[in-house]
Amino acid sequence: MHGLFYREVEQGRRFLVKLAPGESLTARLVEFAKAVGLKYAVVVSAVGSVRDLSFRGIKAGATLPITPPRMHVHEVAGPLELLGLTGNLLPDERGEIDCHLHVMAARSSGEVLGGHLFDARVFATCEIVLSEIRAEGVERHLSRTGGIPTAFIPDEPAR
Amino acid sequence: MHGLFYREVEQGRRFLVKLAPGESLTARLVEFAKAVGLKYAVVVSAVGSVRDLSFRGIKAGATLPITPPRMHVHEVAGPLELLGLTGNLLPDERGEIDCHLHVMAARSSGEVLGGHLFDARVFATCEIVLSEIRAEGVERHLSRTGGIPTAFIPDEPAR
Amino acid sequence: MHGLFYREVEQGRRFLVKLAPGESLTARLVEFAKAVGLKYAVVVSAVGSVRDLSFRGIKAGATLPITPPRMHVHEVAGPLELLGLTGNLLPDERGEIDCHLHVMAARSSGEVLGGHLFDARVFATCEIVLSEIRAEGVERHLSRTGGIPTAFIPDEPAR
Repeated sequence: MHGLFYREVEQGRRFLVKLAPGESLTARLVEFAKAVGLKYAVVVSAVGSVRDLSFRGIKAGATLPITPPRMHVHEVAGPLELLGLTGNLLPDERGEIDCHLHVMAARSSGEVLGGHLFDARVFATCEIVLSEIRAEGVERHLSRTGGIPTAFIPDEPAR
Repeated sequence: MHGLFYREVEQGRRFLVKLAPGESLTARLVEFAKAVGLKYAVVVSAVGSVRDLSFRGIKAGATLPITPPRMHVHEVAGPLELLGLTGNLLPDERGEIDCHLHVMAARSSGEVLGGHLFDARVFATCEIVLSEIRAEGVERHLSRTGGIPTAFIPDEPAR
Repeated sequence: MHGLFYREVEQGRRFLVKLAPGESLTARLVEFAKAVGLKYAVVVSAVGSVRDLSFRGIKAGATLPITPPRMHVHEVAGPLELLGLTGNLLPDERGEIDCHLHVMAARSSGEVLGGHLFDARVFATCEIVLSEIRAEGVERHLSRTGGIPTAFIPDEPAR
């Protein structure tokens, strides 16, 4: 199957994580992963509220690779309801755990904002469920085509 | 690790639940949890359509604790496509199962709305995957700092 | 319990899937499911970016059944950040695997769009975690009441 790569991954541990007000979402998650020896994980659920949200969108009409002039960076003071975090934690080229997360958050108007998460501070609480996956060999590298760090699955493409 | 609390939670049962038109999302989920003896669960997936959606946002510039004057309540007749429910079911102080859910739903314009779910009625269908987690001791209490019911994990903070 | 149907489903395999730029999200996922013999699955996570996104919303004030005049179809060239895919893969009446997915994606303005996914092309990358569920007997049929293909759970309603 051209253009599709996959790995059957064994399910590992599952964690319920709670962050206190003021904590950084991305820094704390990466620190937590290191503390418990988590190398590969997926966010199953993230609910709570955030402030000082910073994220990126891709400009309409942009072509690959994604470069800074083709992005739009947003800083929203909030607070906002956190509706979801989607993404994974994977090791980078140096074997350091790194997170790739997209965020969805709501203004008080009900309007939902989101994009590629840089960081956010917890407002009242943040309750996250992380699921470990056993995916030895999968790494995040800078993709020359895409311009951004991307998961590489060392298998052959699916037949 | 200051400001982060966690529990490794064993995975329990997994349920595929379908709600018929007109049913209340929150009342039915809590009733279902009681019927099957589910105490701790996380919503893995929720897809379908809803009407009479009511949810809350936090006002920009609000500080903690979150109190009614710092919230904005929305009532949207819809119908809307249901894009997701994020959150968990946990026991409250009296041991009664209680749900904390955030909702994402789309207007016909494609605009996505969302926030802290109060309730919604199923429009055409609602297909939910729930995953039980074994998290004895975790409870939802009113947080004095946050002003809202929050998961408490009785362990020491992560080191 | 009137209006609620459920199945306890055993968890099966778990897959990490990566799609390359230009691939069709829905066609590739269905093709992948066939290739690995996956009949029942739920999307746990989907993160990346898309272009040529086409999806449907339900018009405000619409009643059941959902028919084409009660839908609004959107075509967005993008590219957009992909914030999430919610939904499941289930067999249809002929036993052919079929996907029911709702999409959330962000414009560069940070605004989130979404609805019932028809299709999208991968822009830079798309990283998906799929969880197999063992749900023999569950099928997707056209619901006469709802007007749309809907999961049918052959059990009695929950008591």
